[in-house]
Amino acid sequence: MTAPADGGNGSRLAEEARAGSRRALARLLTAIESRTAVAEEALRALYPDAGGAHIVGVTGPPGGGKSTLVAALVAVARAAGRPVAVLAIDPSSPVTGGAILGDRIRMQDYAGDRDVFIRSMASRGHLGGLAGTTATSAAVLDACGFGLVFIETVGTGQSEVEVASIADTTVVVQAPDMGDEIQALKAGLLEVADLVVVNKADRPGADRAAAQLRAMLTLGDSVEGPDDRPRPKRPEVSLASALTGAGVPELLATLDRAQAARTGHGPPAARLARARAQVEGILADRTREALWSSQRRAETDALMGRVAAHELDPYAAAEQLLEQLRGGSQSRVE
Amino acid sequence: MTAPADGGNGSRLAEEARAGSRRALARLLTAIESRTAVAEEALRALYPDAGGAHIVGVTGPPGGGKSTLVAALVAVARAAGRPVAVLAIDPSSPVTGGAILGDRIRMQDYAGDRDVFIRSMASRGHLGGLAGTTATSAAVLDACGFGLVFIETVGTGQSEVEVASIADTTVVVQAPDMGDEIQALKAGLLEVADLVVVNKADRPGADRAAAQLRAMLTLGDSVEGPDDRPRPKRPEVSLASALTGAGVPELLATLDRAQAARTGHGPPAARLARARAQVEGILADRTREALWSSQRRAETDALMGRVAAHELDPYAAAEQLLEQLRGGSQSRVE
Repeated sequence: MTAPADGGNGSRLAEEARAGSRRALARLLTAIESRTAVAEEALRALYPDAGGAHIVGVTGPPGGGKSTLVAALVAVARAAGRPVAVLAIDPSSPVTGGAILGDRIRMQDYAGDRDVFIRSMASRGHLGGLAGTTATSAAVLDACGFGLVFIETVGTGQSEVEVASIADTTVVVQAPDMGDEIQALKAGLLEVADLVVVNKADRPGADRAAAQLRAMLTLGDSVEGPDDRPRPKRPEVSLASALTGAGVPELLATLDRAQAARTGHGPPAARLARARAQVEGILADRTREALWSSQRRAETDALMGRVAAHELDPYAAAEQLLEQLRGGSQSRVE
Repeated sequence: MTAPADGGNGSRLAEEARAGSRRALARLLTAIESRTAVAEEALRALYPDAGGAHIVGVTGPPGGGKSTLVAALVAVARAAGRPVAVLAIDPSSPVTGGAILGDRIRMQDYAGDRDVFIRSMASRGHLGGLAGTTATSAAVLDACGFGLVFIETVGTGQSEVEVASIADTTVVVQAPDMGDEIQALKAGLLEVADLVVVNKADRPGADRAAAQLRAMLTLGDSVEGPDDRPRPKRPEVSLASALTGAGVPELLATLDRAQAARTGHGPPAARLARARAQVEGILADRTREALWSSQRRAETDALMGRVAAHELDPYAAAEQLLEQLRGGSQSRVE
């Protein structure tokens, strides 16, 4: 958190965001992405008020229609008067600003609705980890009164699957007809699924795709989840059509039931995963800051150069850096 | 590196792998993925001998035909008698073993060829970071005499793009006809490209796709790369057909030229990126090990539980953990 403040005081920004300023909220989320001191101050102020929202991960291979399904879920939630936020993890570039995915543009239907907040986040450039930044952003939205937060991510990368795993409930979306490589991508995703939705159910083959999925999931019954996360023995497979709206209210009701079933049983695994992602992200930031601080930068650069030249192996370099960090922190502590 | 040794002594395994045992090499790569003490010992032994190989990243959206193109490049390299290795980053699950992508199976044509080594690596489960594990694996292949190492990865996630960025030369592969969402994924990838290949050039629309890409890349000329990596002002766009073999020998020749142009100018940015990925991965491992060691586990768990319950904010927790780690390391150092 060494980046300069963005001109706003963190706790003031937090107060304004909590009081309903969408501009303050937007600035705060930018500060979190840039990992500034403002973000730290604001999060410290807001964190005690978070914890009540239902964080729903929506993921799946490209082309499954995740964005349209999220838009349809937002419409149903808004019709019921519920404030709802969307964090859309954009796989495109943080450098060029990236391409906005077509479907997200439809979200601008809600431009005048203060109870809908939509935010695109670049998937790259999160040094302390995308999962940590996403968890922190979700906590801020939660503290600002959004009881339902969707995290939408293209489920094809390691980080993206990690993001799905910090959600309270993870929905994996797929279309009936997808290519071979995409079928393979799917296998890894099904393990993090609490619910599987065959979207575009208006198309031919949807019932068959759902039946195949159910068969596949039955085969996987004996497999343990990767994160010891308790989950239903077998994720429910349902059909929906974001286009016609069929199945969407039922999906939201299923999500609500899943969350309601959890309360009163202590912090569940997803909350712990969020806590870990955030804390480990901060620790990684602090280590990186120490390594590349103005005092140590030259020394770190020299060591990395020796590793790059294969004069020193990475373990030896890591040990030297740890010695230096310990020395440095001792003098800071004492 | 607290996982138990896999029964082999690291330096003996390293010696056997360097002497040509493919079985030892395979076991070594497994040890690197599991981050055992054997891997550490072996890497320390092999690292000084690495540094000569050309590490080529091959990435792109799903469906572009990366695997077939890599197979075609391997065929051309083998026809010239060059030893060649492939690290295929498999987006599917580390838990179920995952689905092998169809095209990779064709690689088994080389089952009897000792100078071809093909390895699938799960993209998930690399705690210290996929880029670090991949860089370490590439260094081991390099030390074992593979002068050309392809890293194949589906370029749709943050980690996968990071992996591409540790390669000496990064080739982005795409097919002429791809959907909208995939077009958006592409934008982020083009920034890491040294070369862009329109594969499946036997299909209609390939010339038009190449022309569009060239136009897109011209627009991007003023954009800085994300990692200060010096690269050609504009990546070359070429056509190839893994199916007919057209353009593949030319592509390998272009790759060779790109690498030859680099020697004698000190460690280039990609080598530094590999060094950083490995060292930072080891530091992250050490921090995580310290946090979850048997002595500290209960305390760390309790802190994470308080963060999960929103009784403590993540920054306060990170600070308490840093204090503990410093205390612990002081007593270890003294």
